[in-house]
Amino acid sequence: MRIVKLDESSKKDILDQLLKRSPGHYGAYTETVNAIVEEVRKNRDSALFAYTEKFDGCRLDASAVRVTEAEMEEAYGLVEKELVEVIRKALVNIRAFHEKQRRYSWFDSSENGVLLGQKVTPLNRVGVYVPGGKAVYPSSVLMNIVPAKVAGVGEIVMVTPPGKDGRVNPAVLVAAKEAGVDKVFKAGGAQAIAALAFGTESIPRVDKIVGPGNIFVALAKKAVFGFVSIDSIAGPSEILVLADETADPRYVAADLLSQAEHDEMASAILVTTSERLADAVNQEIDGFLKILSRRDIISRSLENYGYILLADTLDEAIEAANEIASEHLEIMTKDAFTVMTKIRNAGAIFVGEHSCEPLGDYFAGPNHVLPTNGTAKFFSPLGVDDFVKKSSIISYSREALEPIHEDIIRFADQEKLTAHGNAIKVRFE
Amino acid sequence: MRIVKLDESSKKDILDQLLKRSPGHYGAYTETVNAIVEEVRKNRDSALFAYTEKFDGCRLDASAVRVTEAEMEEAYGLVEKELVEVIRKALVNIRAFHEKQRRYSWFDSSENGVLLGQKVTPLNRVGVYVPGGKAVYPSSVLMNIVPAKVAGVGEIVMVTPPGKDGRVNPAVLVAAKEAGVDKVFKAGGAQAIAALAFGTESIPRVDKIVGPGNIFVALAKKAVFGFVSIDSIAGPSEILVLADETADPRYVAADLLSQAEHDEMASAILVTTSERLADAVNQEIDGFLKILSRRDIISRSLENYGYILLADTLDEAIEAANEIASEHLEIMTKDAFTVMTKIRNAGAIFVGEHSCEPLGDYFAGPNHVLPTNGTAKFFSPLGVDDFVKKSSIISYSREALEPIHEDIIRFADQEKLTAHGNAIKVRFE
Repeated sequence: MRIVKLDESSKKDILDQLLKRSPGHYGAYTETVNAIVEEVRKNRDSALFAYTEKFDGCRLDASAVRVTEAEMEEAYGLVEKELVEVIRKALVNIRAFHEKQRRYSWFDSSENGVLLGQKVTPLNRVGVYVPGGKAVYPSSVLMNIVPAKVAGVGEIVMVTPPGKDGRVNPAVLVAAKEAGVDKVFKAGGAQAIAALAFGTESIPRVDKIVGPGNIFVALAKKAVFGFVSIDSIAGPSEILVLADETADPRYVAADLLSQAEHDEMASAILVTTSERLADAVNQEIDGFLKILSRRDIISRSLENYGYILLADTLDEAIEAANEIASEHLEIMTKDAFTVMTKIRNAGAIFVGEHSCEPLGDYFAGPNHVLPTNGTAKFFSPLGVDDFVKKSSIISYSREALEPIHEDIIRFADQEKLTAHGNAIKVRFE
Repeated sequence: MRIVKLDESSKKDILDQLLKRSPGHYGAYTETVNAIVEEVRKNRDSALFAYTEKFDGCRLDASAVRVTEAEMEEAYGLVEKELVEVIRKALVNIRAFHEKQRRYSWFDSSENGVLLGQKVTPLNRVGVYVPGGKAVYPSSVLMNIVPAKVAGVGEIVMVTPPGKDGRVNPAVLVAAKEAGVDKVFKAGGAQAIAALAFGTESIPRVDKIVGPGNIFVALAKKAVFGFVSIDSIAGPSEILVLADETADPRYVAADLLSQAEHDEMASAILVTTSERLADAVNQEIDGFLKILSRRDIISRSLENYGYILLADTLDEAIEAANEIASEHLEIMTKDAFTVMTKIRNAGAIFVGEHSCEPLGDYFAGPNHVLPTNGTAKFFSPLGVDDFVKKSSIISYSREALEPIHEDIIRFADQEKLTAHGNAIKVRFE
C-alpha cells in the first residue's frame, strides 16, 4: 500500500478520490432507471415480468413470482446444516442488541390538564431488497430483517432477483426464513424497487424499502423516496484503522484486507503515528496476499482506494478519521476508549485489538448495514429506529388553554392567519 | 363542504385526489432543478449570485450575501415588541418539549469483556431553509432551529431569499436570532439548497438541510439527498377531524378552516359517524367564511380537497383516518384517548375538544413540521432525532472472542470471504 504523509493537501486528494465512488457520478443511468420505475408504476405486474425477462433472463408470471413454502423447504435441504446453526447463533446476538434499541411511547403531563408526548408506531409493511449474483450474503438478510421484526413491523416482504432457472439462492432463503420474513418475491433491480414502492397485482406496496443493491437499485430507491421511505443509499465498503506503535501489524494488515476483499471499489485506510508500524503492515499485507482467495479484488481495491497515512500526532490522526467518516473504524492504540470519545464520524467503532471488523459483520449483534462514503457524518447504522415512526400527542384542557389563548391569537395575527386565531376564539366566546 | 358516504370506492377516490398534490407529479421541473444544482456545485458563488439575480431580482456579492449584525439589530426595530415577547414565550415550551426527546449514548457490557453500545453525536453543521414571499412564518423558523440547538448541532446556518431590495423579512430574522441561529445568508430556491449541500466560497457546506420550500426547493433537496441528509419533503398542509355526535360543530368547523386557509392545496377532512354533526359543521363553515380574511383561499381549498365523510361506525372512521394518514388529526369523540390508541398514522394527534391545531402550530411545544400527504405512514415529526446520528460501539476481549471465533470463520467461509476469516484466524495463531 502507498504510504502518504498526512497533511491538508493529501487529505483533500484522498477525500476526492474516495468520493469518486459516489453514486452521484453515475448520472447516465438516472434516466434509464426513472423510465423503468415509471413503467412499473403504470403497468405493474406486466412491466415487472417484462423487465425480469429482459434483465434476469427469467420468465415469470403471477403464479410463479412468489417463493412457495415448498421452495423454502427445499432451500433448507440445499444448504449445509452448519450454516443453519451459525445463522441461529448469530440471530440470538443480533436480536439481543436490537432489542436494546427499542423505543417506547412517552408522555409528560401537568396537573392543569396538559398532556404532551410521542406515540411510537411500527411501520405497517416493509420491503427488503437482497441482491443476487456474486454478492450473496445471508448475514445481510439477517441484518435487514431483524430490526424490522424487533420494531414490530406488521409484514416483511423480501425481493431478490431470480437466476435464469427461476431459482433464488437457498442460503438467502434460509436466512430470511430464520429471521422471520413474511413473503419472498423473485424480483430484482429497479423494477423490484418500483414494485415495492407502488405495488403491483402480485407484490404489495410497502411503506419503506431497505437493503443494499447495485447502482440501478440505488437510483431507483432515490427515485421513489417520498412515495415511500428508504434507508440510506449504500456505497462500497470501507475500513479505517487508527493505530499507534502499540498495534500488532499482523492484526492491522489482516483487518485492512478483510474490507478490501469486498469489491474493487472498497477502501482500506490505515492512519498511524508510527512509521515502523506502516512498514510492518505493508510487509504483512504482502504475505497475506499470497494465501487469500480474493487477492485480485484486494489488489485492485488497495491500488485505487488503499492508503497508509502518516500523522505527526494522534490528534491529527483522529481529525483525519473524523473527516473521512469511514463506515468501519478500528482503534488499536493505547487508551483506545479515550480515543473513541474523540470520534465524531464513523458507522461502527471497533475498540481494542480483538475487536476486528468481521466480528461486527456476523456475530457481535450491532447492525452491519452502515453509512458509507462519508455519509457517517449524517447517517446512522440501520436499526430499530428505521422501522418505527412517531406521532406527536397534544392534549390541553380548557383550564390549560385559557391563560395562553390570547398569545396564540396574537402569533396567528402576526402571521396573518385569521382562521387560526378564530379556532382559538370560538372556544372562549 | 361536500358530504360523502364513506366506503371503499369513495375512500379510494379521495386518496387519489389528495395524492394529486404530490411533488412526484411535477416531473417537468426536475431537469431545470438538476441543472441549477449542478451549476452551483461547479461554479459556486458566481452561479449562486447569478440565479439570485435571475429569480429574486437582487444583485448580491460575497460582501453582501450574509446578513450582518447591524441588519439583525435593525430587524428588531422593525417588528412589533409584542412579537418578540410571544416568540420568547413560545420558545420556552418548544425547548422544553424537545429537551425530552434527547437521546443518550448507551452501552451494555458483560464480565467477559464485551462492551456493545451506541454513541450519539450531534451533526456538525445544519442548514435551515426558510421561504420568503407570501409564506412568512416566524414560527417555522423556531420549529426548525430549536431541535437542532437542543441536539447540540455545532453550527446552524439559515438561508432565505432576499427581496428585490436585498432585504430579508425582519420577523424571520428576529425568530432565527431568538432561536439561536449562527449565520444567515440571503439565498433561496434550488440554488440555496445546492449551496448548502456542496458549499460555495461564501456559504459553508452542511451535513443536513431542513425546512419547507416550494417545488424547486423540494426537488433540489431530493437531488442532493445522499450528499447531505434532508428532512422529509414537505407538502401542502392537512387536517383530519375525527368526531362523533358529542363534538361541538362550531369547534370542528373553525378547526377545519384553520388548516384550509394555509393555501389552495391544503386539505381539510371531517370523518364522522353523525349526520347531524355533518350538517351543523357545514352551516358553521358558511358563517365563518363571511368573517375570515383568507376566504378565497379557503373556498378553493375546500372545493378541491375538503370532504365530510360519513362513516357507519367509529371503527370505520378510524380506519379511514389511518389510511389517509393526515398531517394533523383531531379527535373530538367520547373516550378520545381510547380512540387515540387506535390511530397508527398521523403527524400530530390532538386529543379532546380544547386541543385545537393552532395550539400545536405555535405554543404547546411539539414540532409543527410534520409529515404530509400520506407520508405519516413512514415519516415522523421533525425532532431532536433528526439532528443526531449514531455510531455502533463494539469492543471484545480475547476471552470473549475465543469461544465464538470458529463460528465467525465458518460464516465468513460460507460467504466465500476468506480475508474476513483470516482477520479472526491471525488472533488465534
